[in-house]
Amino acid sequence: MSFSATIVTLFPELFPGPLGASVLGRGLADGLWSLSATQLRDFATDRHRTVDDTPSGGGAGMVLKPDILARAIDHVAPPDDPRPRILMSPRGAPLTQARARALARGPGAVIVCGRFEGVDQRVIEARQLEEISIGDYVLAGGEVAAMVLLEAVVRLIPGVLGGVDSHAEESFENGLLEYPQYTRPQIFEGREIPAILTSGDHARIARWRAQESLALTRTRRPDLLDRLEAEKRDKA
Amino acid sequence: MSFSATIVTLFPELFPGPLGASVLGRGLADGLWSLSATQLRDFATDRHRTVDDTPSGGGAGMVLKPDILARAIDHVAPPDDPRPRILMSPRGAPLTQARARALARGPGAVIVCGRFEGVDQRVIEARQLEEISIGDYVLAGGEVAAMVLLEAVVRLIPGVLGGVDSHAEESFENGLLEYPQYTRPQIFEGREIPAILTSGDHARIARWRAQESLALTRTRRPDLLDRLEAEKRDKA
Repeated sequence: MSFSATIVTLFPELFPGPLGASVLGRGLADGLWSLSATQLRDFATDRHRTVDDTPSGGGAGMVLKPDILARAIDHVAPPDDPRPRILMSPRGAPLTQARARALARGPGAVIVCGRFEGVDQRVIEARQLEEISIGDYVLAGGEVAAMVLLEAVVRLIPGVLGGVDSHAEESFENGLLEYPQYTRPQIFEGREIPAILTSGDHARIARWRAQESLALTRTRRPDLLDRLEAEKRDKA
Repeated sequence: MSFSATIVTLFPELFPGPLGASVLGRGLADGLWSLSATQLRDFATDRHRTVDDTPSGGGAGMVLKPDILARAIDHVAPPDDPRPRILMSPRGAPLTQARARALARGPGAVIVCGRFEGVDQRVIEARQLEEISIGDYVLAGGEVAAMVLLEAVVRLIPGVLGGVDSHAEESFENGLLEYPQYTRPQIFEGREIPAILTSGDHARIARWRAQESLALTRTRRPDLLDRLEAEKRDKA
């Protein structure tokens, strides 16, 4: 059984969208993964097809109604559906490569895209939605965030990248930023490729890349080094 | 002059895609912002329209050629173009709400979408590309990341949200996760809306929300509290 993604959204027409392009799209066409998008509004119960209401206690924006969202979730994922139920939300746990990897090993995901001010807390609890955030910024809705999550996950499904990217994978997996890359021409606007890269000495090239990777991470993302230190301590 | 975004990509047909939906799409139709996508391959110089080559020093994947990418960038953004030139890249500075806000106040952005293993370092330096990352995970390319960046920025352009979301804005701006939201019905599967929210006492509601917001942040994202502390120290 291949990885199966179901999206609950007010904009089902946006899917697969970018997920239908390039290698992810080929994987979709080849049945390595599947995707369906369900219109949340179809589960409304009034003739205006209402899905949201004003926040209890006041405030701006609108909140997705718990009863309507629960009906939609129960329809696409009955209680025995083994797939994790995810809510894209800036309040969630930050998406990591480790979570993407775990999801890629599983049966798929049911992904709820929020809109408006938020989602009623009770349906998050009652349906045990796992809140995932793609970063510390505010979006207009969860749709593009869901695409980010699926792109990160689907490219890890065996066969999707055809194995070509396995090294890159390992490189990110070490928790550091990637070393600088170069390709032909040898001279570009007076700038040469570092001589070591054309030396043919693979051991030295590997050392140089490891040093560059570490130096870049130290400069740009010292928080990643702190995290690696903390992980080492936890293991020790 | 309204905010103008230009994308350099191998998949121009993916744009505007999700950015054409909902309030962002209305803002696009109303001329509050504009978007164009340029095919990188059109700037190749050989008959195979080659845009990439193998990495110097070996390794998996392919690297975008500096000369071709520079031609594309120079075409869409001559040296006197005041817009920042951005490269979506996992090696970049993490996207923040502050960066999104600064970009929204500016004339627009030229956004380069990477693909393959990466982009030749020399064109990053020669064209002073600002590398921005949307999160610590690996995507197949920069297109969906560019959509995330633009969604975060465009919703902040005056008029796009019609002012309805200004409170939510401030709420995120304080650096904490948002408090839980509720809406009707009063009882959902036996779960009631917290009584305080229907009390009508707005001062108590505001206090309750501030406490919930702080408690949630402490549990889920202590790193955000650390960051706030550090900012306070820097100001003091």
